[in-house]
Amino acid sequence: MKPSIPKGTRDFSPQEMVKRNYIFDTIRKVYQSYGYQPIETPAFENSETLMGKYGDEGDRLIFKILDSGNYLGSFLQDESKMKELTEIIANMTVYSITGSEDARKNLEDRQADARKKLTNNISEKALRYDLTVPFARYVVQHRNDITFPFKRYQIQPVWRADRPQKGRYREFYQCDADVIGSDSLLNEVELIQIIDEVFTKLGVPVIIKINNRKILQGIAEYIGEPERMVEIAIELDKLDKVGPSGVENGLKEKGFTDIQIEKLRDIILVKAGSTPSIFEKLNQIEQKDVKDVVFSPKKLGVYENSPIAKKGGEELEYIINTIEHLNPNISIKHDISLARGLNYYTGTIIEVKVDTSKCTSQFTGSLVGGGRYDDLTGIFGLPDVSGVGISFGADRIYDVIEELNLFPKEIAATTKVLLINFGDKEAQYCLKVLKDLHAAGISAELYPDTKKINKQFEYADKRNIPYVVSIGEKEMESGRAALKNMITKEQIEVPIADLTKHIK
Amino acid sequence: MKPSIPKGTRDFSPQEMVKRNYIFDTIRKVYQSYGYQPIETPAFENSETLMGKYGDEGDRLIFKILDSGNYLGSFLQDESKMKELTEIIANMTVYSITGSEDARKNLEDRQADARKKLTNNISEKALRYDLTVPFARYVVQHRNDITFPFKRYQIQPVWRADRPQKGRYREFYQCDADVIGSDSLLNEVELIQIIDEVFTKLGVPVIIKINNRKILQGIAEYIGEPERMVEIAIELDKLDKVGPSGVENGLKEKGFTDIQIEKLRDIILVKAGSTPSIFEKLNQIEQKDVKDVVFSPKKLGVYENSPIAKKGGEELEYIINTIEHLNPNISIKHDISLARGLNYYTGTIIEVKVDTSKCTSQFTGSLVGGGRYDDLTGIFGLPDVSGVGISFGADRIYDVIEELNLFPKEIAATTKVLLINFGDKEAQYCLKVLKDLHAAGISAELYPDTKKINKQFEYADKRNIPYVVSIGEKEMESGRAALKNMITKEQIEVPIADLTKHIK
Repeated sequence: MKPSIPKGTRDFSPQEMVKRNYIFDTIRKVYQSYGYQPIETPAFENSETLMGKYGDEGDRLIFKILDSGNYLGSFLQDESKMKELTEIIANMTVYSITGSEDARKNLEDRQADARKKLTNNISEKALRYDLTVPFARYVVQHRNDITFPFKRYQIQPVWRADRPQKGRYREFYQCDADVIGSDSLLNEVELIQIIDEVFTKLGVPVIIKINNRKILQGIAEYIGEPERMVEIAIELDKLDKVGPSGVENGLKEKGFTDIQIEKLRDIILVKAGSTPSIFEKLNQIEQKDVKDVVFSPKKLGVYENSPIAKKGGEELEYIINTIEHLNPNISIKHDISLARGLNYYTGTIIEVKVDTSKCTSQFTGSLVGGGRYDDLTGIFGLPDVSGVGISFGADRIYDVIEELNLFPKEIAATTKVLLINFGDKEAQYCLKVLKDLHAAGISAELYPDTKKINKQFEYADKRNIPYVVSIGEKEMESGRAALKNMITKEQIEVPIADLTKHIK
Repeated sequence: MKPSIPKGTRDFSPQEMVKRNYIFDTIRKVYQSYGYQPIETPAFENSETLMGKYGDEGDRLIFKILDSGNYLGSFLQDESKMKELTEIIANMTVYSITGSEDARKNLEDRQADARKKLTNNISEKALRYDLTVPFARYVVQHRNDITFPFKRYQIQPVWRADRPQKGRYREFYQCDADVIGSDSLLNEVELIQIIDEVFTKLGVPVIIKINNRKILQGIAEYIGEPERMVEIAIELDKLDKVGPSGVENGLKEKGFTDIQIEKLRDIILVKAGSTPSIFEKLNQIEQKDVKDVVFSPKKLGVYENSPIAKKGGEELEYIINTIEHLNPNISIKHDISLARGLNYYTGTIIEVKVDTSKCTSQFTGSLVGGGRYDDLTGIFGLPDVSGVGISFGADRIYDVIEELNLFPKEIAATTKVLLINFGDKEAQYCLKVLKDLHAAGISAELYPDTKKINKQFEYADKRNIPYVVSIGEKEMESGRAALKNMITKEQIEVPIADLTKHIK
């Protein structure tokens, strides 16, 4: 038997762990410095907490846990339950059918339905799919113990039964921060500062894209489809991937009319503009080159005539002005095509990408996503609590830092000093030296076996240990150790009592 | 719908998280200072990696994950598979039977067997049950990339479908450290030093109990049952809980004869002795008061006549002598009744309990367990690799520290400074002050909403924030802020530029 792990999952080696912890620690420290507090929720939730919160596709991708013990027992209690099971099985076990396409489709539907029924009967728990829904559940469940506004961060893995592919895993970490119970735009400003600070610390140049769902709502109203904002938003969001004609085709497929699509064309053709220009352009009446227009509200008739789009524009303006005033070097852009797939966002939406104009990264995915939601906790019975949050995708950030070779060299070494083991007497002596090194805050280890010296040096080399200390019989007598710097290959003799002074 | 979480799981609030992180960080830092390197493995493994590794009871307690997608699809592919499913269902759905006890038992067995078959067909993954088996799998899978001896630590949650009760959860963290690929007893010495250092840092007085499976093997041989060492060990291990007569009854139930039990009586009656005395007593020929005898090998005829028991005794002696020489204040005791339930241990076994003679704790459970195993990776195809490891039970340690009120007060405050929000103009000003505080490494936040001042102070109070800074219009003009110490209730006026100097 050759050992392996489930597809889409990963082991993390020590070399990978130190790099991952470097990212997590960076994010965690910035979160903490802004007063965000940690929480954790269980890996699995009751199925009813998660099901129906992520759409049909989400439901399908949630990992379900088989009930423990006698999981079919409930069927065996009485005849009516037994009959139900028999029926389910009957529906599942009609495995082939001759006949029309319709008949085949009908069979598939019956089987899927039967499977769903069986699933509900044998599984009542499911693995966390993201951190947002468990957080909403947490807030409602513990509302009496929470001090609002509640600023929390949460760094935990989530699981999705997605088809694994490069950069997409079935187990991955999310690093979320949310403020709940405050509708102040200062929260948005703060979260954007956090994003900027994290990537500055990591050395990754990024563009922070921002938009507001209220503007999208105005656009939906402008084309006469106020209820279909999310649908339009989802299509618009694909602009970067599928281009303008792709977006138009997507809208056509969803049943939008040619007139509606014509009205949206100005928006579709637009590229993400730089921020200062957008507010000027908001006031321009006509645009010659539509490609250069970020958002021409008067032409679109949205901004002036739609109170909600106007509100969205004002929010955007406040946030961008405040943040640029605080940090003139920040790279933040309004992107009218930015929509984010999740349907609970109601105001600001944020997305972060690598600034490929400033580095050689080929990475086009989103590194951070976030936004404001006005009623996330409503699904659990606590309506009208506004919140806003962001989520760092640690795995993608890892890939970018690796690609750009930006991991600091010094994090590779987990042990500073190796003490050579010459034999039991010397080892006993070295244990005391080790104690002094630890007391001085230096991570150090004694090679446990009395192997050949070159093997022990090889171990230090492979482990990236920068210092090797040799204390043999002679050194024990003289009180002076041989200290070798494994990087410069220099070896010096130092008094054993002074060892700590020579290790940087 | 009232939101809730599955039984046996927990949410961790910010107050709990900082305490938990204090424990994890303490353990992690000590591990790192001794050169242990972090790894992580996936939350779920292939079922065949876990099943059969923890005994029948363990198999039952492993959480299985329902295959995603069309999980009964494999049955629908051909008639023979269909027939198999029909048979399984038939076996499961005979829900009641009249007849003898035997017939009922037989039905239950058939149902359990059918359920097992169905489980194997609808679930191929299972949640991690401990960190040891995934670690063994990791070592074998990545053996070509690992530098041996491999010192790794791993801090991750595990899941068990145990019946939840006070102090026993279905999701809990383990904090393991192992050295694999070295049979030096210095590894045992090091792990015991680590245990001592962690509990010294945490301020919890503990007794480190140590024994050696080889001695237990000698005892098994002594009573003529060399193959039944683990069975004897498991019964002996219950001594603290059930007392001597309980152990004797347990052995009787397992079919040991009265003569064998008589031979074991000296051991059963023994209490864990203090270490220095044990090696003296090893040489005593006869004992007057058997209650005071820790291990009287000559009387038992074990130590002298059993090479394996002798080896175990020598290992024990080396470890205890070395550690006591290094740290004369350590509380380490040989306990001949210590066995540990896990059957893969082959040498040293370690267990840590609260030293209730030195504190008021009522806690009798084990805080750390560990030992040496000579062939853990053999199950995955890599035989003859010796390893030794320990596992800190973070949840139990938490309970003890809480009970003894030993959590440092200062960890409660996650934010140092709150800036009062007097309105938008003042808030914009404060954002810059905040930036300076962050740059000085001080965690600080601005209250996001323009609420009544007393509400904002109340927030600081509830959040345990020690400093509140007020900068209103007057203060903006004068450049001097009001700084209130929330603990002493003192308020002083300081130049805004000097704020960082006044915050400790």
